Amino acid sequence: ITPADMLAVVEPGVVTMTLRDAVRKMGLFYPPDPASLDVSTLGGNAATNAGGPACVKYGVTRDYVLGLEAVLPSGELLRAGAATRKGVVGYDLATLLVGSEGTLGIITRLFLKLIPHPRATRTALALFPDPERAVAAVGAVMTSGITPSCVELMDHRCLSLVAGDLPFPPPGGRASLLLIETDGDEAAAEADMAHVVAVCRGMSADQVLPAGDEAARERMWRARRSISLRVHESAALYVSEDVAVPLSRIPELLVAVEALQCEHGLLTYAFGHAGDGNIHLNMTAATCDTEATRRMENMVEKVLRAVLDLGGTISGEHGLGMAKRRFAPLELSPASLALQKGLKKLFDPGRIVNPGKLFP
Amino acid sequence: ITPADMLAVVEPGVVTMTLRDAVRKMGLFYPPDPASLDVSTLGGNAATNAGGPACVKYGVTRDYVLGLEAVLPSGELLRAGAATRKGVVGYDLATLLVGSEGTLGIITRLFLKLIPHPRATRTALALFPDPERAVAAVGAVMTSGITPSCVELMDHRCLSLVAGDLPFPPPGGRASLLLIETDGDEAAAEADMAHVVAVCRGMSADQVLPAGDEAARERMWRARRSISLRVHESAALYVSEDVAVPLSRIPELLVAVEALQCEHGLLTYAFGHAGDGNIHLNMTAATCDTEATRRMENMVEKVLRAVLDLGGTISGEHGLGMAKRRFAPLELSPASLALQKGLKKLFDPGRIVNPGKLFP
Repeated sequence: ITPADMLAVVEPGVVTMTLRDAVRKMGLFYPPDPASLDVSTLGGNAATNAGGPACVKYGVTRDYVLGLEAVLPSGELLRAGAATRKGVVGYDLATLLVGSEGTLGIITRLFLKLIPHPRATRTALALFPDPERAVAAVGAVMTSGITPSCVELMDHRCLSLVAGDLPFPPPGGRASLLLIETDGDEAAAEADMAHVVAVCRGMSADQVLPAGDEAARERMWRARRSISLRVHESAALYVSEDVAVPLSRIPELLVAVEALQCEHGLLTYAFGHAGDGNIHLNMTAATCDTEATRRMENMVEKVLRAVLDLGGTISGEHGLGMAKRRFAPLELSPASLALQKGLKKLFDPGRIVNPGKLFP
Repeated sequence: ITPADMLAVVEPGVVTMTLRDAVRKMGLFYPPDPASLDVSTLGGNAATNAGGPACVKYGVTRDYVLGLEAVLPSGELLRAGAATRKGVVGYDLATLLVGSEGTLGIITRLFLKLIPHPRATRTALALFPDPERAVAAVGAVMTSGITPSCVELMDHRCLSLVAGDLPFPPPGGRASLLLIETDGDEAAAEADMAHVVAVCRGMSADQVLPAGDEAARERMWRARRSISLRVHESAALYVSEDVAVPLSRIPELLVAVEALQCEHGLLTYAFGHAGDGNIHLNMTAATCDTEATRRMENMVEKVLRAVLDLGGTISGEHGLGMAKRRFAPLELSPASLALQKGLKKLFDPGRIVNPGKLFP
């Protein structure tokens, strides 16, 4: 870590949290914060272009990779990008490797941009009568003239699972939450949060509960972070989709998903990075027999088609991997797929790195 | 422009300033601000991944291109990226097209991310006894815990050309300037500027002159923006390099350039986006005979080699085009060049779009 250059040069196996903690001691900030940041590695984050709650203000992993070194399938070492904050020499191979899911080469070193650590953070939960009003408030907050550092959604079904972790009695009904943060210098974080609170109240929030201290803040985040696991534990069959839509279309997305889950007899939990339009839809069934699996498959495809009809993308931050690769042609045109397969062939004619990922 | 999605969908021929002005009326901000923003087009900005003074805080054009449409050399239309704020479906072809200088396809539509317009800006000139102390102060400002929205350098030679545009008597000698801005809400912009002023004074600034109003600010920027033209007018032979180095290496870069220009009998003007380590080095000669041209060619190559030795890149924001393409092999390894030529061939086997650019 070179504070004078606001730069970290790391091996791919460094755990994200380790870097975050190390640079924080120097007053610096490495923003990308996937939910798995205490176990996921920076190499993996770069290979998947990982996101997280802070992306709504600070951008994704790609925005912090200035350059990298990778071993190509040929065995040659590729140095791409630079250790500088700007660079436009040739095609941007560093950014192409970021998010390529290990299918073009193996990242062996990363040059990561650091920024000053925000001096203060304000955190609050805003409770709305139903998920539709909660997501309508997301749009209102995001277009109100400030950029919060997090806008996370937990719908009523998620709340029913994590009620015990919440700092208030279970709200019941279809009540849904936004977890919102602002940051900056002390006064700005405070002023921005006051602004957010006013916007939420204007959008029919029943309550806005500020986190009084770091322990209260940690408790709010624990509730948010435990959702995925609790959903997984609650169901026999579980499929997680990771769609993103333009901000104004989030309400339509939730309405469409609600209708589809009734039609298919499935239970869907909606949560995640609403400020980016990036909603995690976890679809579950109580049984995992053939018939439930078939209903699930039908619903997944219909959800993804609905997302694309809303101008969205089928994966905001999780990528295609093997699980979603069959859906790539829903979003990518034949011209795009042909170029992408050509890229794979150019880098890896023998198909030896991470075979089977991204494309069949 | 869809304020509810914080999105602009534009044709490539829209002039950058036109979009900036249009979204500003809606309280929104399109940050990338090349010096030519009143004439350059958004399509050109995307094709070259244009930068500008605001990039030090807000990033470059690439960071605002969510998606795009382009006509491929085959005549097919490519839709890449999405209209969402996040997306990781397949290889990032949108970002690959950004900065490809028209050599992979012709951009026909852009989906651009917008953010809230900062409510207040503070501007100041900081005058240092010499360029070495000015650039040392750049590092001090950038690592002092805040991110200014601009940190522009004008060295003593630039000042001698634009002295009439400055809001004070010509300082003379080797006195050099930083033009610094902070932004955010009113209080934060003010507090951050007070912080910057204190850091500059601590780094031996002779004077720090705040811009009292918009007219004073405009006058400061006019001086900064007129440098390129004035340098061009002042010399018979003129070559502009656009290097970037890690922040801590800027002082060494200026020392190296000073020595090289004495050795080659040339006059070099250093200015530009010092907060990004992106210094524009304009090298000039009083005559343009064969002998001066030879000296210039020697110096250019030595400067670029010095930049690479300092861990830098030979182009921070202007790209290779035709003028600099012969230097690509100085920075890019054979493995990188082979992949880049393979990319060109994949997209454009007949070499019909923008032939001769980037690579010989």
